[in-house]
Amino acid sequence: MDCKSRSSTCIAPINIAVIKYWGKSDEEQIIPLNDSISITLDTDYMFTKTTATIGPEFTQDSIVLNNEQGSGDGVRFQNCLSEIRKLAASSKHSSTVEKSTWKVAIVSENNFPTKAGLASSASGYACLVFTLAQLYELESHQSELSALARRGSGSACRSLFGGFVRWFHDSQPCIARPIAEAEHWPELRCLVAVVSNTSKSVGSTEGMRRSAETSKLLEHRVKHVVRDRIEDMKMAILEKNFVKFAEITMRDSNQFHAICLDTYPPLFYMNSTSQAIIQLVHRYNQIRRSIKVAYTFDAGPNAVLFLEQAEISRFASVFYSVFGSTPHDQFFRGKVPDLLDPTEDVASLVPEKALKGQVQYTIVCNVGQGPKNIDPTG
Amino acid sequence: MDCKSRSSTCIAPINIAVIKYWGKSDEEQIIPLNDSISITLDTDYMFTKTTATIGPEFTQDSIVLNNEQGSGDGVRFQNCLSEIRKLAASSKHSSTVEKSTWKVAIVSENNFPTKAGLASSASGYACLVFTLAQLYELESHQSELSALARRGSGSACRSLFGGFVRWFHDSQPCIARPIAEAEHWPELRCLVAVVSNTSKSVGSTEGMRRSAETSKLLEHRVKHVVRDRIEDMKMAILEKNFVKFAEITMRDSNQFHAICLDTYPPLFYMNSTSQAIIQLVHRYNQIRRSIKVAYTFDAGPNAVLFLEQAEISRFASVFYSVFGSTPHDQFFRGKVPDLLDPTEDVASLVPEKALKGQVQYTIVCNVGQGPKNIDPTG
Repeated sequence: MDCKSRSSTCIAPINIAVIKYWGKSDEEQIIPLNDSISITLDTDYMFTKTTATIGPEFTQDSIVLNNEQGSGDGVRFQNCLSEIRKLAASSKHSSTVEKSTWKVAIVSENNFPTKAGLASSASGYACLVFTLAQLYELESHQSELSALARRGSGSACRSLFGGFVRWFHDSQPCIARPIAEAEHWPELRCLVAVVSNTSKSVGSTEGMRRSAETSKLLEHRVKHVVRDRIEDMKMAILEKNFVKFAEITMRDSNQFHAICLDTYPPLFYMNSTSQAIIQLVHRYNQIRRSIKVAYTFDAGPNAVLFLEQAEISRFASVFYSVFGSTPHDQFFRGKVPDLLDPTEDVASLVPEKALKGQVQYTIVCNVGQGPKNIDPTG
Repeated sequence: MDCKSRSSTCIAPINIAVIKYWGKSDEEQIIPLNDSISITLDTDYMFTKTTATIGPEFTQDSIVLNNEQGSGDGVRFQNCLSEIRKLAASSKHSSTVEKSTWKVAIVSENNFPTKAGLASSASGYACLVFTLAQLYELESHQSELSALARRGSGSACRSLFGGFVRWFHDSQPCIARPIAEAEHWPELRCLVAVVSNTSKSVGSTEGMRRSAETSKLLEHRVKHVVRDRIEDMKMAILEKNFVKFAEITMRDSNQFHAICLDTYPPLFYMNSTSQAIIQLVHRYNQIRRSIKVAYTFDAGPNAVLFLEQAEISRFASVFYSVFGSTPHDQFFRGKVPDLLDPTEDVASLVPEKALKGQVQYTIVCNVGQGPKNIDPTG
């Protein structure tokens, strides 16, 4: 390799919205209709890893995604790339300006199965932008980087930050900023339930467009519901008020899916297993006489559950009793919880029908940090 | 039996809302938050039959519902009864005034399985009120009777009329009135699909209350969406514009279920079979390059499909190929359609997973008349 070429490898986290992003006011610029709030998950189990190499000897941009050669001419990928090159070209460092003219070779992969329906575009574009920023020495341009990631995939702008993150729909530029760091709420846990037998459904870009065009309820949500929820959610997070946090999270997930159903033709992202998980969570909270667990669902049937550390063994035991059909250390991945004897809770939660096997496996994680450089010398 | 006692037997139809009623502004009086529009189905296959007997020798009111002795002291039953007695007591006919003081014996049954989840309270209360009106000779008091039936079950006020019926939320008294007679649109057919494996869910009285209290979208629906839809639907019916009728019907059904999902905790009335039927109808319409079939779902998983006579064999053939697991004359009841060889349509509609047997059976009917007296001498 030419001595001028440079390479960097970074990882970026996924993020889960607790106030949902659904609908754009500008398709091309990817400006959302409303603010959203997300939680960044730790990269112990799930992350995107990207290696970017730039060099004067490359004759074209190239990209390998999850071991498959991509064409590198995707509109969003090129948008991202051309915007970050512009930023580099305007640098006061002549070396950065020079590098902005070189072609890039990207190798990116998710260590979690994309087929599982876990959003990979957010961590993917966040990782791309962050990695290129390392090479161009643009790490300090946090706002610009968030805006750049947004051009790749809207919610990627949130994955550039750790902890609790708010994406502003009307900031200039349109970017995300942290509400609180990951360490702010160390007791918070996330359990991602990967649902079996998912079927193909309308992609979120197309789904959002259809909702914005046909739902008679979306505008009301955007103008009159989300504004208050954003403030309430921010307070719940700052106060570490789990009950409030959980209720808003569940209500907002349900409202997002209600908007999908009000879309014409309707969009179905949740399936009967998702429905069973929702009903289980409400029944569990009822038995516990307080809200101990919250669910949220993105544009797919997988559930993301939030709970505090003190509840995890108890809830995981119940969840495993209802859905688990593989050994406990295969069913739980990441921070595998200890299980209790759940007889009493489970007895009052007997599901109406057999649900064993409807959840393939679950990943347990903490709130985590933003992207990081993992170069040996980094 | 004492020669003074009088008996009458009547039948009343069920009705299917195409603009949905969901939410009350007055729980006790059963005043709906918005107008609704329904279609009355013929009584060839589905109806409630009620025999009412009044006599001075009866010492208490009694009721037998579907061969089970009821207590007769249900609040809604007593509300209905006391209101109709008031009306009778104010009659200028002394015989009616006398009869208003007698106790009544009611025997009522639905000829369709109530366990199938088909709303029986609408036809039930319409039949009760209509039958008592025969005995008290109050048949001409149509408005008052509609208001009386409403006190038993909101949507019962619509089952007192045949054809296409609008229930006004702000009329005085709060009643339903026909938009058009059954004969107005003779080509219209209705296919009720009774779904297998239904599970118990929240009743509609409790569900409505919960939505009115917790949904952030219901008020917007009531104030800003339904008003226009009612006018559009009325025009579609008067013009017999099936495409317009069908689209509004599907959108309003979906919005009602969206409100249910936006309720906290959420209400699920549709299940995976309902979802499969919705997807089948949209795909079928796509293949037919026009809207040929519409669906609507009440507070349960059963589908009610509307289509015109010219389409029925073609659609029924497809529907049977996808869902039918019993012989054709068991799967279709009522006006059993002829089936075509559906190979071509079905090939382009191959469902993602096996759906055979998920619909128990279907009932095919026409738009029908209001309640009628079936006394031998009547």
